[in-house]
Amino acid sequence: MAEPWIIAPVSALISIAAGFYLYHYIKKQDSGTKRMQEISTAIREGANAFLRREYTILAIFVLIMATLIGLLLPTPVWTSENAIQNLSLATAYIFGALCSALAGFFGMDVATKSNVRAASAAKNGLNKAFSIGFRGGAVMGLSVVGFSLLGISVVYAVTNDPTIVLGFSFGASALALFAKAGGGIYTKTADISADLVGKVELSIPEDDPRNPAVIADNVGDNVGDVAGMGADLADSYIASIVAVMILGYTLRDGLPITHEIPLIFAGLGIIAALVGVATVRVGKTGNPGKALNMGTYMTCILYTILTFATTTYLNVNLRIWGATLVGLVAGIIIGITSDYYTSIDRMPAKKTAEISKSGVALNIITGFSYGLHSVFPPLIGIGVASTIAYFLCSSIGEGYAVFGVGMAALGMLSIVGMIVASDAYGPIVDNAKGVAEQSGLGKEVIAVTDRLDAAGNTAKAITKGFAIGAAGLTVLALLAAYREIAGAVDFNLMDPLVLLGAFIGIAIPPVFSAMVMLGVGKNANRMIGEIRRQFSEIPGLKEGKEGVKPDYARCVDIATVGALRELLPASLIAIVATLVVGFVGGIEALGGYLAGSIFSGLLFALLMANSGGLWDNAKKYIEAGAFGGEGSEAHKAAVVGDTVGDPFKDTAGPSLNTLITVMSLVASMFALLIAQYNLLGLFA
Amino acid sequence: MAEPWIIAPVSALISIAAGFYLYHYIKKQDSGTKRMQEISTAIREGANAFLRREYTILAIFVLIMATLIGLLLPTPVWTSENAIQNLSLATAYIFGALCSALAGFFGMDVATKSNVRAASAAKNGLNKAFSIGFRGGAVMGLSVVGFSLLGISVVYAVTNDPTIVLGFSFGASALALFAKAGGGIYTKTADISADLVGKVELSIPEDDPRNPAVIADNVGDNVGDVAGMGADLADSYIASIVAVMILGYTLRDGLPITHEIPLIFAGLGIIAALVGVATVRVGKTGNPGKALNMGTYMTCILYTILTFATTTYLNVNLRIWGATLVGLVAGIIIGITSDYYTSIDRMPAKKTAEISKSGVALNIITGFSYGLHSVFPPLIGIGVASTIAYFLCSSIGEGYAVFGVGMAALGMLSIVGMIVASDAYGPIVDNAKGVAEQSGLGKEVIAVTDRLDAAGNTAKAITKGFAIGAAGLTVLALLAAYREIAGAVDFNLMDPLVLLGAFIGIAIPPVFSAMVMLGVGKNANRMIGEIRRQFSEIPGLKEGKEGVKPDYARCVDIATVGALRELLPASLIAIVATLVVGFVGGIEALGGYLAGSIFSGLLFALLMANSGGLWDNAKKYIEAGAFGGEGSEAHKAAVVGDTVGDPFKDTAGPSLNTLITVMSLVASMFALLIAQYNLLGLFA
Repeated sequence: MAEPWIIAPVSALISIAAGFYLYHYIKKQDSGTKRMQEISTAIREGANAFLRREYTILAIFVLIMATLIGLLLPTPVWTSENAIQNLSLATAYIFGALCSALAGFFGMDVATKSNVRAASAAKNGLNKAFSIGFRGGAVMGLSVVGFSLLGISVVYAVTNDPTIVLGFSFGASALALFAKAGGGIYTKTADISADLVGKVELSIPEDDPRNPAVIADNVGDNVGDVAGMGADLADSYIASIVAVMILGYTLRDGLPITHEIPLIFAGLGIIAALVGVATVRVGKTGNPGKALNMGTYMTCILYTILTFATTTYLNVNLRIWGATLVGLVAGIIIGITSDYYTSIDRMPAKKTAEISKSGVALNIITGFSYGLHSVFPPLIGIGVASTIAYFLCSSIGEGYAVFGVGMAALGMLSIVGMIVASDAYGPIVDNAKGVAEQSGLGKEVIAVTDRLDAAGNTAKAITKGFAIGAAGLTVLALLAAYREIAGAVDFNLMDPLVLLGAFIGIAIPPVFSAMVMLGVGKNANRMIGEIRRQFSEIPGLKEGKEGVKPDYARCVDIATVGALRELLPASLIAIVATLVVGFVGGIEALGGYLAGSIFSGLLFALLMANSGGLWDNAKKYIEAGAFGGEGSEAHKAAVVGDTVGDPFKDTAGPSLNTLITVMSLVASMFALLIAQYNLLGLFA
Repeated sequence: MAEPWIIAPVSALISIAAGFYLYHYIKKQDSGTKRMQEISTAIREGANAFLRREYTILAIFVLIMATLIGLLLPTPVWTSENAIQNLSLATAYIFGALCSALAGFFGMDVATKSNVRAASAAKNGLNKAFSIGFRGGAVMGLSVVGFSLLGISVVYAVTNDPTIVLGFSFGASALALFAKAGGGIYTKTADISADLVGKVELSIPEDDPRNPAVIADNVGDNVGDVAGMGADLADSYIASIVAVMILGYTLRDGLPITHEIPLIFAGLGIIAALVGVATVRVGKTGNPGKALNMGTYMTCILYTILTFATTTYLNVNLRIWGATLVGLVAGIIIGITSDYYTSIDRMPAKKTAEISKSGVALNIITGFSYGLHSVFPPLIGIGVASTIAYFLCSSIGEGYAVFGVGMAALGMLSIVGMIVASDAYGPIVDNAKGVAEQSGLGKEVIAVTDRLDAAGNTAKAITKGFAIGAAGLTVLALLAAYREIAGAVDFNLMDPLVLLGAFIGIAIPPVFSAMVMLGVGKNANRMIGEIRRQFSEIPGLKEGKEGVKPDYARCVDIATVGALRELLPASLIAIVATLVVGFVGGIEALGGYLAGSIFSGLLFALLMANSGGLWDNAKKYIEAGAFGGEGSEAHKAAVVGDTVGDPFKDTAGPSLNTLITVMSLVASMFALLIAQYNLLGLFA
């Protein structure tokens, strides 16, 4: 009989196949009028150009890093008796980066094809358009989990060594970090500039074709939201599987397959997600937001049943299954509480909308305050979930307690295929709306795309909370894995080196956030100048004279160049700081550093994601007619709040998950080397 | 021969005497025209009315708390063989609260007397006006340290037990927390409302007598900035002395006076501050900012010399003196880096001012980003200082390492008399400017008060960084003291209860900040309505018709009632959460909780203080003529940024120091009880 973990690559392949099938389904759909195709081509070309240039830069970085890994890790090649390990690790690293890049590229490609087709289908009502939008997202979701799990399975099958899989994970995460920082800066540069000049200064609607930044804005949705967000969940997904494999590896004497359980559960998660995706349907009068959530719940239930059956069948302790369930439930609860703080029909968004009548400043203060408030439930949720999982599994035996924490992370992330599907749906239908507006498809069609878009926002609030919660448990599992690799040391807060490390670690996520947001500010400032210039220098543009077109390409170029310039420094600093702390302070200092970065990383990720979402919905609440509606003073204030929230929720916030994952992975990769060579260790 | 620590009460008495002397000096000065006296009386009455009502509420709280302490601490009175300890602790607690209240009241009283006299003296130039402003601040500084150290000395002389002094410290800190939250909400409610309607909507200048909120705004400066800030440093000051006494108490076998060293050093610090205060002088053409800083440096140098001589004379290990010096140097470095991020002539403020040309949103994003950036140097500074102090003293013997960390905190705080003096100078001259404007003293006089005010802002940037750094080291010392009391347990981050505690602890400072800032938002919203109503309903008010006066009292009342309503809940939640975590999770969970609250508390304190200061100065930079100067689009954007920063830097930010101090003190007070009775302990 084949080993049970074979279910991982098999379901991964099925997932990829299903993705291909849906991809062809989308390609077959009507791609609309000539004007629509023109717009869609412009978006696709802009997005491809950006990704090409981004990946060129990153390829150089990956090669340098791979060389370093090959030379130094797990131990320097000149001292190592087993140089093949170095080669394996470097290869796994490149392979991981490649998988991440492919998933990003593929997801974006299908997104730029789906948007125009969803817009076209919207002419015939909600039903078909929703299908296209969601299936576009599903291609992304299924290919992300498919490629990720297939990659892990290949590396594991070849090497049979979870620490080599760590290299794969590091490759995927590091690439994801750059892609998210770059995409995040791109998308918000374009979005903010287009809004500030278009909506605020000239009072022309969003996605108006007169706005020179409108194509750049649509490109940004794809390179930022689609490619970036897919990479985000993929990297937590991979990292959680790897972390649990490493934690399980030390327990393999107890149960030979312990370290393969994460692979098995991940495979089952894919099957559950496939079924979940297949069941998402909306009637002609149906509610698309509900349909998305039903798909998620369906996936969860199926996953619970499948894993229970498998656990029993394989004679694995049911407490391990219980830990997974704890994670899954915590993920849903965290998602629901995030939803409360950001949702358009809840108190925080409404109060923020109301106080906007008294001006911008109070809108900002209030939205930010609710954002601060919103960190409480998820932080408690992560803490409680990890504690329950810990104690649930601690009675199985030595080492199982932290393994349980890892399984909880895995539980949260196992349904990630479905999560990414409903999350990627958002920017696709957002773009569909943009295409519809620019190609003048009429009010009714735009109303349909509006409804699709609103459902995307609801789904997004839940999935974002979910993503951060999952990242939180994952990095805790990674911290435990790091400790395991480094030799089961303790991180005692009363040890001054641990504390020093923690103080430095706390400071990294805010500094990283500052750097990428300042990047957005600088670039947006430049692009605003360009948009103002075009409106004042191109005759007839402002008035919308027939045949007068802005120079879209110029804005696309500013966003591209700016994002590429800013994407490396912030991310590199985080990697370099991790190595400096490790090689100077040693294993304990690095442990404190990781813990500190987890604390402040989660804090700011939640704060920024939620306050950003809240400002967005406060604005939408006013646009729906409250407090004077569109054009009122309250609305103007709320638009500014929304703009402040843009880089919070789409640039800095979502990169932080990946940042702390990358920092933890770097630490684990270098742990053995750091244990041997560190400055303070030399003195001791 | 008397015991060496007698220097503490003696220098405290001298300090109080010097304060009285300066108080009478100020009272003798000319209090200006009738109109000026009218305004000054209105401010004083408003401030007194607020304090009276605030203290009435707090007295009830203090009595309830004292009863609980008397019944339960250190061990329940019905199980205790030594009930006198319970009584002592409760009495010390009340005494501490009383001292804090007195220092706040006295400081505010002199501040409201100094402002009008400084304004009057400004008619004759800078020199005399500066003297009055600074001496007013010095009364505050000298009485704060005097009362604090005298109180500690009395409690210690009577009980000879540092754990009873802990009760004194808790009383002082808890009262300070409420006073700061209440004062902070008051001052920003008035400030924001006055600015938003006056400056932004109607374009009338600041401190214009037509504005119905102008008196409330001036009252706010006194109840918020003067009384609040004095309480802030006083509570860190007392807590650091107590923490080091407790840490030293376990070492008294090594050197009998170890636990009295903090008293001796604090006494020497007062002497140094007295000399420092006496040397602050500014010539007719002199630079007041420089004069303030020179006073601080003078105090530092003198303190270093005095403590070195005493350490040698008493045959105390010089490494202990070294640790103090480390703290002092770190405090200055942290102050200087804060100055970089907030100062009007540095890059961050200038860049933020420049980007304001592109609108409010980019001003907010940029200022907030630099605020995020600014947390890095001080966090590293606190981490490095504590590590150096630790290793410096660890070779003296077991237990001396953490004692060294405490001594570093003490080193930072020993010069607090001088720090408070130059800090309280700020709101006094700010008020002097307000009085000058409202009573029409002419352009030249206002220009003098402007210069005095600018110097206050420079000094404030440094002292604020200093205060946060000092609080950081103090809470670390308190954490060590808590651990000592709780029985030298370890707080291992891989222990799930420590981790759970940490996750909860991290969440408390943001939730607290959210609550007080939402309080400001709500109250300001109410007051804005009232100001708009007065301008529209009182005929001739907007136009400044002779004899037409707004209803100042109504605004004062709104600010008072609102602040009183909001001041208890946020602070109580922090105390209650600490007890819940302790009595449910036990000693280790509470240790993690404290560490978590320290991490996020410092993070947000720095972020909010610095971004708030930065926004303020970016606005001032534009007002000085850059980027279009006053009235330009850039200026309008910068005014909004400044308003957002107001509750950051004056409500939430500065309360966070006190919050984490209070949480640490509660933990230490209840440590013995928690070790005996906790829910999870019952199951274990």
